[in-house]
Amino acid sequence: MISNDDFYARAAWYVVAWSSELNRTKPTSVMVLGEQIIIWQADDCLVAMEDRCPHRLAPLSLGRCEGASIRCLYHGLIFDKDGKCIRAPGQDKIPPTLAVKPYPVTEKHGWVWVWMGDPDEADIALVPDLIGVDTADFHVAKGTLDYDADAYLINRNLLDFSHVPFVHSATFQAPEEAADVLPHWTRMERGLRYTSWTRSVLGSAVSPSAVPIDDMLGYDYVMPGIMSLLSGHFPLGTADDVAGGRPDFANAVGAVIASGQAVTPVDDRKARYFFWTGPRKDCGSQQLAEMLDRAQHAAFAEDKIMIEAQQKIIDRSGGQRPIPTAHDRAITLFEQMVKKLNAADANGANTDRGKTNANMEQEQ
Amino acid sequence: MISNDDFYARAAWYVVAWSSELNRTKPTSVMVLGEQIIIWQADDCLVAMEDRCPHRLAPLSLGRCEGASIRCLYHGLIFDKDGKCIRAPGQDKIPPTLAVKPYPVTEKHGWVWVWMGDPDEADIALVPDLIGVDTADFHVAKGTLDYDADAYLINRNLLDFSHVPFVHSATFQAPEEAADVLPHWTRMERGLRYTSWTRSVLGSAVSPSAVPIDDMLGYDYVMPGIMSLLSGHFPLGTADDVAGGRPDFANAVGAVIASGQAVTPVDDRKARYFFWTGPRKDCGSQQLAEMLDRAQHAAFAEDKIMIEAQQKIIDRSGGQRPIPTAHDRAITLFEQMVKKLNAADANGANTDRGKTNANMEQEQ
Amino acid sequence: MISNDDFYARAAWYVVAWSSELNRTKPTSVMVLGEQIIIWQADDCLVAMEDRCPHRLAPLSLGRCEGASIRCLYHGLIFDKDGKCIRAPGQDKIPPTLAVKPYPVTEKHGWVWVWMGDPDEADIALVPDLIGVDTADFHVAKGTLDYDADAYLINRNLLDFSHVPFVHSATFQAPEEAADVLPHWTRMERGLRYTSWTRSVLGSAVSPSAVPIDDMLGYDYVMPGIMSLLSGHFPLGTADDVAGGRPDFANAVGAVIASGQAVTPVDDRKARYFFWTGPRKDCGSQQLAEMLDRAQHAAFAEDKIMIEAQQKIIDRSGGQRPIPTAHDRAITLFEQMVKKLNAADANGANTDRGKTNANMEQEQ
Repeated sequence: MISNDDFYARAAWYVVAWSSELNRTKPTSVMVLGEQIIIWQADDCLVAMEDRCPHRLAPLSLGRCEGASIRCLYHGLIFDKDGKCIRAPGQDKIPPTLAVKPYPVTEKHGWVWVWMGDPDEADIALVPDLIGVDTADFHVAKGTLDYDADAYLINRNLLDFSHVPFVHSATFQAPEEAADVLPHWTRMERGLRYTSWTRSVLGSAVSPSAVPIDDMLGYDYVMPGIMSLLSGHFPLGTADDVAGGRPDFANAVGAVIASGQAVTPVDDRKARYFFWTGPRKDCGSQQLAEMLDRAQHAAFAEDKIMIEAQQKIIDRSGGQRPIPTAHDRAITLFEQMVKKLNAADANGANTDRGKTNANMEQEQ
Repeated sequence: MISNDDFYARAAWYVVAWSSELNRTKPTSVMVLGEQIIIWQADDCLVAMEDRCPHRLAPLSLGRCEGASIRCLYHGLIFDKDGKCIRAPGQDKIPPTLAVKPYPVTEKHGWVWVWMGDPDEADIALVPDLIGVDTADFHVAKGTLDYDADAYLINRNLLDFSHVPFVHSATFQAPEEAADVLPHWTRMERGLRYTSWTRSVLGSAVSPSAVPIDDMLGYDYVMPGIMSLLSGHFPLGTADDVAGGRPDFANAVGAVIASGQAVTPVDDRKARYFFWTGPRKDCGSQQLAEMLDRAQHAAFAEDKIMIEAQQKIIDRSGGQRPIPTAHDRAITLFEQMVKKLNAADANGANTDRGKTNANMEQEQ
Repeated sequence: MISNDDFYARAAWYVVAWSSELNRTKPTSVMVLGEQIIIWQADDCLVAMEDRCPHRLAPLSLGRCEGASIRCLYHGLIFDKDGKCIRAPGQDKIPPTLAVKPYPVTEKHGWVWVWMGDPDEADIALVPDLIGVDTADFHVAKGTLDYDADAYLINRNLLDFSHVPFVHSATFQAPEEAADVLPHWTRMERGLRYTSWTRSVLGSAVSPSAVPIDDMLGYDYVMPGIMSLLSGHFPLGTADDVAGGRPDFANAVGAVIASGQAVTPVDDRKARYFFWTGPRKDCGSQQLAEMLDRAQHAAFAEDKIMIEAQQKIIDRSGGQRPIPTAHDRAITLFEQMVKKLNAADANGANTDRGKTNANMEQEQ
C-alpha cells in the first residue's frame, strides 16, 4: 500500500531488478509501490506474480519454481504462470478464488520491468528508450542505491538540477551562479526533455579540448521515473545552429557520455535507484566508465543524505506543502502529467480488467 | 492489549514460564495476551499480579519481594498477594482503588500456568494433562523459542500437519503425497484429537523394526494452544483393532515418544513457544531425548521462517482473509470452539467478578 | 508535534544546549517539544530558527551559516536572522510566504535557552536564576543524559523526593522511613520551593562535622522544568530561627553545595536532561565537584531505569490515570500552574503575533 499514489503513474513499466538478478530455480522477490512481487525466468518467458499464496497468505518467495509454475512450500499448492491454482493437496475441486495476481513483466536494457497498471493496457512500446547501456558502442558501469525516502523526492531532485552547485559542490564543482540560469524544458509524450548548452569552452576537467567547443548536456525524464542522459562536445556554433535544441550526436567531436537512471518506489518510505553510466567507445575506455560510475556514486550519496533528511522533516511536518520557486517548473509539469494519466486511467473502462499474465517477453 | 482476541480463549490456563525460571527474591516478569504479569515463589504459594503499580504506573518487576507481598521500589508502596496496597509511605489511609490486579497461577508439568479469564472461574482441573514430561518413565529434553508472529498462526500450523512434507522436507523427509491424505480428527471437551496410523511398516529411520508393525502418531490440541503428542509401534493389526482410533500404550512394542508443546501469545506480534520431547525409558535413553530435541529445534526453526514471513504478508494485506482448503478443517473447528467459549464467557454473570488472588497452588 | 502539551508551559525558556555546543560555521540542530530548531553564534547575536527550508522542506541544519544568515544547501536559498528569504537562485521576486519561523534565543548560566511561546511575550527576565554554575565562588562539574521517556515523568520524579530512599538506596542511602515525612513546599511565581531541615546532626558522610549542626536541603522547581538546588550546614538552632524556611547562606558553616538541573522535552517519548553540581569554593575543591558529579550520574542512571520502564507501562496502559498519594501534592500543584499558564496564554490576544527574531542576547 502506498499513500502518495498521486505522484506515481500506475500505467507504466517500473524497473524492479537487473536482469542478472533473476534465476530459474528460486523466485526473486521485490517490492514496488508497496506490492510484493516474485519474478523468475522460466524456459521461454519471465513470470511475475504477487508474493502471496491466497490460501494462508504465506510467501511464494519461499516456494519452488517448477518451470513456469510455482509451488508454495507451506502446504504444497501449485500456481501456473497466470496465477491460477492447479493443485491443492487433499482437495480435488479448486475454487477459482484460489488465485494469485499476475503482473505483466518484460526485460530490456538489462533491466526487468513490471507493469503496475491495468494488465490489459500493458504495452511493450511504453518501455522507455535508453541510449548507451545495451548499445554496442558504449562502455558502461552499473550501480544500485537504496533510499529511506519516498521515490517522488528523488524524481523531484532529478527534475531540478539547480541543486547541483549546492548539493554537489564537492563532486561536480559547478559555480553557484549556475543556479541563476533557468533551464530549458520541452514536453514529451510521457515526460520532459532538458537541454543545456555551454557555448565556446575548452572542454571540461574530465575531457579538456584544445580548441573551443560547444558543450551540451541533456536528458529525458519519463514516467514512472526514468532518466536518459547524454552529453558531448560539438563544433563551435552547433548550439546556435540547433537553436539550443538537440544536436545530431553523429557530429559530436568528443566526450560523448551517457547515463541511465531508474527510480523505483518500493513503499511509502523506501525507494531503489538503479543507474549506469559510461562513454561512447570512441570517447573513452571501460576505465573511464568506472571512473564516471565512482563519481556518480559519490554524487548520489550526497543526494541521499539531503533527501533522506528532507523525508524526515516531511514526516514531522503534518502535510505542510512546499513553496515552489522558478526552478520547480519541471517538477510541477511532470507531476501534472502523472495526475492526468492516473485520472484518465481511473476513468477507463476497468482498471483491473484482466488478471492473466500477459507476458510481454513472449510478445516481443 | 491484543487485537486478535477472538483467536484466544480467555478462560484458560496459559504457560508463561518454566518453573525453574521463578525465584523468591525477584519477580519474573512475563507478557501474556498483551498483559505484563509478575510471578514469584513465596514460602507457601506462587503469587502473580499485574506488573504495574497503580500509584504512578511504575514496574513492580523492579520491586522487592517481601514474602508473599511486593514493595514497589519507586515510592515504596507495598501490595499483598491479593494485590491490595497495605502500605503507602507518608499516608495513613489507603484508598481501595490503590490495588493491583492479581492472577490465578499454578505449577504443573514443570510449567507455570496463569489463568487469563475471570479469576472466579479459574479451575485447576482445566490445566491440560500431558503424558511424559513429569512421568517417571520418560526421558525428556526441553526448549523455548520466541516468535515475531501472532500465536494464532502457530496454532494453525500445529493444527494442519499437511505442511510437514513441504516445510520440513529437509528434517522429516515425509513424501509430498502424504499431504493428499486428509487426517482423522475427533472433538474433545476443549480441543481436538488427531490420530494417524501407518499400517504394516518396518518401523522408521529412528526406530527400525525387524518385523512389520503398525505405526501410530497422535496428538491432542487443546485450548489455549497446548499440544500433547504421542507416537509408538504396535503389533500388526492394532490399527484395525482400534478402528483407527487410540490404542492402549501398554501394548506398544517400541518407539514410544512423547512431546509437549505450549504456544503462548505474548502480544499481537510476539509469541513464546515452550516444548519438550523424549522416549519412554524402555524405548530409548536421555541421549535419544536430546537427539529428538535437536530434530524438533531444527523443524521448529523451519516453521518459524515460514510463519514470521507469513505474518509480514498479513500485516501488509489489510485484513485479507485466507481461503481454507480441505486441510483447514481442524483450524476452523478449533477457532469455532474458541469463539464459542469466549462468547459464553462474555455472557456470563461478570467476566471480572473477583479480584482476589485465587492461588491454585494452595488448593492442590 | 507533542501530545502531552498540557504538561509543558509554552511561555517559557527551555534549555536546549550547553553554550559550548554552538559554533559560528555550522548550525546546531536540536528538538524541543517536537520542533526541530537550528541555532548558531553570529558575530553579535545568537540566531535560532526552524530547521526546515520552506521551499522543499529540506534541513537547514545541512546549510551554511553566512554571518547571521543561513544558506540552504539544497537549492541555495538564503534566509536572514528573522527567517526572511533574501535570495532564491533564478528568481527575482521572493514571496513573503517563503520564510522560516524564528525563535527567541538567549544564553545564560552556560546554557542556551529558546522561548517556545509567543515570541512577543519572550521576556529575558523569565530565565530562571541559578546559584552556582556561573558564580565565581563555586566549583562545578557538568553532565547531560538522554531519556527515552516523556519529560513530564522526569519533572514528576524531581517534584517527589520520597523516591530517594527506594530508587537511590544504593547511591544515597537514605533510610526508608524518610519517606514517611511529608515535605514542606511553598509556592513561587512560576514554580515551587522545597525546604527540608535535619536538626542537630554531626554532618553527613560526605561532610562530617565535629559539632552538631542543622543541615538544610532545598530546591526551587520552576517552569518549564528547572531545578536549582542548594544545601549546607548551619549553626545549631538556625532551622528554628528561620521557622523551617530558607536561611541566609552567608551564615553557612560548611558543606554548601549547589546543583542545577534542566529537563527538556524533546518529543513525546524523548527528553534531554542537563545538570551540573559542585561546592562553594570555601567548602570544597574541583575534585569534590567531580565526585559529586559522579554520584549524580549514578543516581540519575537509577532514575532513568525506573522512568523509562514506567514510560513503557504507560504506553501500554491506554490512558489509565495514576492514583496520587500524599507525596504527589507538589506534582499536582506544579501541573495546575502549568495548565493555568497555558490557558491564560491561549486566551491572550494572539499566541503567534510576531515572527521577528527577538534576539534576547542583544537586549541584555
